[in-house]
Amino acid sequence: MIRAQIILIALFALTFGFTFGQDKEPTEPEDTELYEPVPPQVVPGKHGAAPSDAIVLFDGTNLNEWISVADSTEANWHLNEDGSMTVKDQTGDIRTKRNFGSVQLHIEWKSPKEVKGKGQSRANSGVFLQGRYEVQVLDNNGNDTYVNGQVGSIYKQSIPLAMASVPSGEWNTYDIIFHAPEFSRGGNIVKPATMTVLHNGVLIQDNFELEGPTEYRGWPKYKTHGKAPIILQDHRDNSRVSYRNIWVRELD
Amino acid sequence: MIRAQIILIALFALTFGFTFGQDKEPTEPEDTELYEPVPPQVVPGKHGAAPSDAIVLFDGTNLNEWISVADSTEANWHLNEDGSMTVKDQTGDIRTKRNFGSVQLHIEWKSPKEVKGKGQSRANSGVFLQGRYEVQVLDNNGNDTYVNGQVGSIYKQSIPLAMASVPSGEWNTYDIIFHAPEFSRGGNIVKPATMTVLHNGVLIQDNFELEGPTEYRGWPKYKTHGKAPIILQDHRDNSRVSYRNIWVRELD
Amino acid sequence: MIRAQIILIALFALTFGFTFGQDKEPTEPEDTELYEPVPPQVVPGKHGAAPSDAIVLFDGTNLNEWISVADSTEANWHLNEDGSMTVKDQTGDIRTKRNFGSVQLHIEWKSPKEVKGKGQSRANSGVFLQGRYEVQVLDNNGNDTYVNGQVGSIYKQSIPLAMASVPSGEWNTYDIIFHAPEFSRGGNIVKPATMTVLHNGVLIQDNFELEGPTEYRGWPKYKTHGKAPIILQDHRDNSRVSYRNIWVRELD
Amino acid sequence: MIRAQIILIALFALTFGFTFGQDKEPTEPEDTELYEPVPPQVVPGKHGAAPSDAIVLFDGTNLNEWISVADSTEANWHLNEDGSMTVKDQTGDIRTKRNFGSVQLHIEWKSPKEVKGKGQSRANSGVFLQGRYEVQVLDNNGNDTYVNGQVGSIYKQSIPLAMASVPSGEWNTYDIIFHAPEFSRGGNIVKPATMTVLHNGVLIQDNFELEGPTEYRGWPKYKTHGKAPIILQDHRDNSRVSYRNIWVRELD
Repeated sequence: MIRAQIILIALFALTFGFTFGQDKEPTEPEDTELYEPVPPQVVPGKHGAAPSDAIVLFDGTNLNEWISVADSTEANWHLNEDGSMTVKDQTGDIRTKRNFGSVQLHIEWKSPKEVKGKGQSRANSGVFLQGRYEVQVLDNNGNDTYVNGQVGSIYKQSIPLAMASVPSGEWNTYDIIFHAPEFSRGGNIVKPATMTVLHNGVLIQDNFELEGPTEYRGWPKYKTHGKAPIILQDHRDNSRVSYRNIWVRELD
Repeated sequence: MIRAQIILIALFALTFGFTFGQDKEPTEPEDTELYEPVPPQVVPGKHGAAPSDAIVLFDGTNLNEWISVADSTEANWHLNEDGSMTVKDQTGDIRTKRNFGSVQLHIEWKSPKEVKGKGQSRANSGVFLQGRYEVQVLDNNGNDTYVNGQVGSIYKQSIPLAMASVPSGEWNTYDIIFHAPEFSRGGNIVKPATMTVLHNGVLIQDNFELEGPTEYRGWPKYKTHGKAPIILQDHRDNSRVSYRNIWVRELD
Repeated sequence: MIRAQIILIALFALTFGFTFGQDKEPTEPEDTELYEPVPPQVVPGKHGAAPSDAIVLFDGTNLNEWISVADSTEANWHLNEDGSMTVKDQTGDIRTKRNFGSVQLHIEWKSPKEVKGKGQSRANSGVFLQGRYEVQVLDNNGNDTYVNGQVGSIYKQSIPLAMASVPSGEWNTYDIIFHAPEFSRGGNIVKPATMTVLHNGVLIQDNFELEGPTEYRGWPKYKTHGKAPIILQDHRDNSRVSYRNIWVRELD
Repeated sequence: MIRAQIILIALFALTFGFTFGQDKEPTEPEDTELYEPVPPQVVPGKHGAAPSDAIVLFDGTNLNEWISVADSTEANWHLNEDGSMTVKDQTGDIRTKRNFGSVQLHIEWKSPKEVKGKGQSRANSGVFLQGRYEVQVLDNNGNDTYVNGQVGSIYKQSIPLAMASVPSGEWNTYDIIFHAPEFSRGGNIVKPATMTVLHNGVLIQDNFELEGPTEYRGWPKYKTHGKAPIILQDHRDNSRVSYRNIWVRELD
């Protein structure tokens, strides 16, 4: 390159201008209007209530959508009179009977007003998408712990962008947009799972790409799987976390 | 490939097993705990109210954060006694004085209870991120239009996943996670803008990659830009759309 | 997350093992054999000679495949008796009459044995794919210049991995695999051009993603275009570079 | 969006033009010249001969760079007087003593002039990058087989773009640019292996992304590994394939 090339470039553009084309661009507004597919009508809920197309997983009346992870018998966590349920210590995790892929999940949770324990032992539970990918539930009010294990973290993978809990004893909301991972026919990960989380309306996880399932020890490792249940955790340390108003919308 | 190779593969794996390594995986739970950076504490709002770290763009008391797009004079839309503002026809679009990149935006809007006009002429307005990327505002209740221009669409680019409006005259919420596009030093797009939108709590745009700025005619075309204001549209057809409770959290 | 969870994970896997499936994997060797499409038969050339499916752009007998960039008249570079052609100073760049997209290009070039000038003024020419994306031709033997402008560079974008020239006066080969950029319907770049170059058999550009067309000043800037000619440069400084044995295979 | 907005867009652009910036673009040619890093000088070889920086794996004089895959004893394939080696049936595959990551590999091979067998049983061998990723060697002259297993295929993964063999008994060249796969710390594939192959100078594999290691049965499945040897295959069917002039340049 280069001297005296500049003028020639202009000539060149003139000369070959016609051949450097693409499909002709539409000029009328009507040309770029689409009339299908028509999106479904959904009646939204107010203040976190389930929209009309959601699968309601818990509305406070029963635990019919849930079973025990350990033995697939009924989920015998406490069903409270105020429309919530509470972890029953040592009964183990519970899971949905249904399997899910990508979802929008709304869930509300509360740690006891009377605090007890510290660090990871104060009101610890968790929401596991597809039984593997955990959003941490913990009472972090005045209670420090490792930040990739604090409330709102994707456990041991992603520190939340903010700590947005309400005071102990009040209800928190998680609004989660989860995309299931995709695997090759041979079982290799080809598209990682992603998670967006709003904690009490505050964005704390922003389309985070998960490195694999949640691991307590060692590195995350994807293994191929299909649709799978949502799990709520019994941390087995007398963490009396309560849940209410759980619904899900399938995205696939 | 192949006959009789299977046994050799096993031998081969044994032989070279040591050299096919990676950094040693940690085995203790403590090995994968992180203690920084510590996320900021944010006091969340209830039912869409601004969290403590948000920039409040409109709280119902004044229009101080806004000016006219046309001439940069004050934004003289109607300021209502109920803490909302309403488009003042023919005064033109208004924009924030501040410029923004990637944001979480909360905004509430309402079409008049008394419906008037049809199609794109019934309570049409729009929220333009960075002055260019529009989420459509429209009264679509019993009012069909092209679906890539209906309420909740990314105008002429993305049909919403659902039509989740409340009845005319009631307040809608948009919760938007917007990522600004990224450009090369020469001005070429290298990472498209993305948009996630919850309409009244229902996911209607799911991390959509924009093809470019909103265009009324023709195809979208990215042009390099930096941070830019949020614009609210006066559609100039006497569309009396109202807005309230507008706040934004910067993500970059 | 955590305590006592390990045992349950195992149970969980057993319990849901069946549902975590995918299409059944084939077990017979025949299951993964494909019989079409049948690749075309090509008779290869020896030592850089054109294969049977190549478009021969220059075989030493004439310049019929080329015209002047400046005025589209015939390309009047020197046609030599040894089957090569040489830049005729001040006649300007020449280009192929044909337009190309993605190609495999073989081209041979030689700088004069008798060196003259220094830096960018010693036997400077260039091969421009699609008239815009230049692989630099220069006599760099004992002749330093800026490394992103040296022989084998993608001019002002990519330093070559090695300087693999033969001595001045001997024939060099460039074997280039070029993929044309792709643009959106609105004209934005969506997939950058890429270039792989073997210089005398040595890999010097390894699937490099171009930032845009070659620029002498300022940053590269993609502008939408279609298929376009290959250009050979007259650097207008009496750089008597010679070319021979030019052929191309279309990849799209 | 819409009516009467066009004029305002122009005003808007004027108004905010200054803030839509980026770093100032350089205007002088010197501003975009780089002087380091200086690429290494390499003396190229002629007609496929090893360049000065290559690791020569076989030059015809001995098999010192190779050992038996089965038992790590010396590679006892036939060493021929013409500077080639030939598979010794039932001695098994041989591999390099060295381990490699990403490489440029040159290798020449020949099937016997006197043809014998058919389909996959006519002069079948293979070049396995990192001991796992096979480029097929086969005498396909007048000898059809499944196309994803024919000469030049990435075995059972990628049909070659062309069948470019020379007649049986003549020497073929493979010039391969191989990029090793990348794995997460947990062992998941994060960047697939890629392969570009020139067969006798004809591009037959064009930056193909491998789905995993070569599999005779079932789907490819990545498993984490580090640098690994190149393997040449004894197909154990009396396929007397010969090799010569093998050299490699490391790319990482």
